[in-house]
Amino acid sequence: MRIGLLGCGTVGGGVLKICEERVEGLEVARILVLPGEMEGPLVTHDVAQIVDDPTIDCVVEAMGGLEPAHSFIIRALEAGKSVVTANKAVVAAHFAEFQRVAGAHGCAFMVEATSGGGVPWIASIEKARRVDEIFELRGILNGTSNYIIDAMERGSLTFEAALAQAQELGYAEADPSADIDGIDVANKAIISATVAFGSLCRTTIPRLGMRWLTRDLLDVLAAQGLSVRLMARARQDDGRYAVCVEPVVLAGESVEAHVPKNFNLATLVGATVGELKFYGQGAGALPTGNAIVQDLLDVAAGARPRYATEETLAWDPALLEASYLLKTSAPLPDAAELFPKTGPEDGICLVRGCDPERAGALVREAAEADPHAFCASISPEARSLLGL
Amino acid sequence: MRIGLLGCGTVGGGVLKICEERVEGLEVARILVLPGEMEGPLVTHDVAQIVDDPTIDCVVEAMGGLEPAHSFIIRALEAGKSVVTANKAVVAAHFAEFQRVAGAHGCAFMVEATSGGGVPWIASIEKARRVDEIFELRGILNGTSNYIIDAMERGSLTFEAALAQAQELGYAEADPSADIDGIDVANKAIISATVAFGSLCRTTIPRLGMRWLTRDLLDVLAAQGLSVRLMARARQDDGRYAVCVEPVVLAGESVEAHVPKNFNLATLVGATVGELKFYGQGAGALPTGNAIVQDLLDVAAGARPRYATEETLAWDPALLEASYLLKTSAPLPDAAELFPKTGPEDGICLVRGCDPERAGALVREAAEADPHAFCASISPEARSLLGL
Repeated sequence: MRIGLLGCGTVGGGVLKICEERVEGLEVARILVLPGEMEGPLVTHDVAQIVDDPTIDCVVEAMGGLEPAHSFIIRALEAGKSVVTANKAVVAAHFAEFQRVAGAHGCAFMVEATSGGGVPWIASIEKARRVDEIFELRGILNGTSNYIIDAMERGSLTFEAALAQAQELGYAEADPSADIDGIDVANKAIISATVAFGSLCRTTIPRLGMRWLTRDLLDVLAAQGLSVRLMARARQDDGRYAVCVEPVVLAGESVEAHVPKNFNLATLVGATVGELKFYGQGAGALPTGNAIVQDLLDVAAGARPRYATEETLAWDPALLEASYLLKTSAPLPDAAELFPKTGPEDGICLVRGCDPERAGALVREAAEADPHAFCASISPEARSLLGL
Repeated sequence: MRIGLLGCGTVGGGVLKICEERVEGLEVARILVLPGEMEGPLVTHDVAQIVDDPTIDCVVEAMGGLEPAHSFIIRALEAGKSVVTANKAVVAAHFAEFQRVAGAHGCAFMVEATSGGGVPWIASIEKARRVDEIFELRGILNGTSNYIIDAMERGSLTFEAALAQAQELGYAEADPSADIDGIDVANKAIISATVAFGSLCRTTIPRLGMRWLTRDLLDVLAAQGLSVRLMARARQDDGRYAVCVEPVVLAGESVEAHVPKNFNLATLVGATVGELKFYGQGAGALPTGNAIVQDLLDVAAGARPRYATEETLAWDPALLEASYLLKTSAPLPDAAELFPKTGPEDGICLVRGCDPERAGALVREAAEADPHAFCASISPEARSLLGL
């Protein structure tokens, strides 16, 4: 199969290396880069040389960003070429359109590499769905935020020091917003939920970040055997669904609380298979390149997965109801009680029977007086540890 | 696809339920049980009514044990029927023969349900191998032994009390030898290594059980931030391979040390994808039934996986070299030093640069004076915690 590669940075480079060194039958025939980025006989700066080349069967989009990635993907699909992408932002924004065009032209649109890097997450959801209804997803789907929390917890660093360390190692960007504000996880959650629930997930979901997570708060929680991770949560039941991204207070003994460094861990809950968890490198040239090459092999073998293009389930955030922790120096909301074993001076309250939309409203309200307000849901295991 | 079911106990019952309630196109057409076990229009007591029935496409073997399972599988394959089995003992003993006969008759021989229950472990190894060489496997592949250790560690039970609890819950048999002596894990390790390394694994591998694991020892280890799990370990490198089953001393902070109850967690290490872990229910009617139904769906879609039928790698236990812990009241071996932070009265020694075959010899030697000798390898992370 002859492949046109759009972008040859970290991920594209990984794809090129794996195709050249490890697999038979996948030939990178053309590489689109910006002028000055790369030279060689395969290089072009004109996307038409890929999308209009009838000898190219499949396009790998590894450019990132919304445009021109969106237009290039559409052009490739309209030319009847299957597309494999690692670009979670463009897929979360245009999943239905990409699938409709792919379906209309009989080609594949493959998204394994968008969510969980090298972890075979999307394909595992798809496979589980052959037998089971999937009721629930949850997961640590962003390595950078996990690295920061792990370094804060195990390395006793402040948030700022842990972030600086992640930036030094190349895990976090100079502007870390997409990682620490949950934007990246939200894109992955939208894609994962669409595949898992068989219904197109809306493109805007409740989202709380971890920018204001402090060592003090982690210490208060650790004293009660608790930990925190930035997670996606999604449920569907009885024709309804909800998806959110937020910090989650976890039992310190949970598997999730022991995911080290920049690894990912994603969980699905199926009717007969029960709880399955998938762990691995969520980013990086070779793991993400591996996920793309796995998709390419499936395309070559004839795979044409078709995911939902319509939102057939009804949005209902009550499915994600939980108790929430809210830490703020602003006056506490009316319904709030103090978090167990903390005093008024800690400024940590417990909000019972809340859902992610209401949690977001509470944070926005608190943020008027205290822009550093932090909010996290409390997992069932953590809740039982707290005796709630 | 019309299916003949051999055995309708826990696993067979799960398959029947899932085929009836959840999937299209899989029809259980005949069920072989012993007289008196079950009645109904599909029931037969004569295997010929399944293997000689030309309308049956595929046979699910869910009887367990070596015979007549072995003969029935061969008869089904020779009749050109694909076979899906959950029987790790018979596959570990006859893997090459089953595959040769399946290959000769153009049918599939599928083993997902033998290893890791509902965890998509065998298929994930196969998929990883499309791109990567797999260098290493390790895993908690027996839920019963994990349940016992978890109950000892978190529930502060003695081994005997934890075993009794596992028996009460139906996780452990009245004779728990297969689970606690590592026989069950060894069968799964043999199958997994054959698939992962592309070379038939020998049928006898070094194996240490956890029958003599004591609360005292767990307490000594916990004081140093360490835990224990009964695990399979396998490596291949440069034309050589080795596979073993043994208790492993783990860093208490590791993911493995937090696998709760009777769950499984299996890890593969691939050249480009790095470390992937798969977690789920390793046993039970529905999870194992799910694994069988997944295999059935693959057979229906035309899957005919071919694993190695020859041992092309050379056996070399040195690949699994590690430091070992040996706890015994027998005189310590010459090369032994005391385990860190323990005294001679604890009877715990450290044997550096040992491999699983030599560890077995040390245990057998010690067992002449002390039948309760316990031995475990020490993971790299635990080793670094101990400052070794």
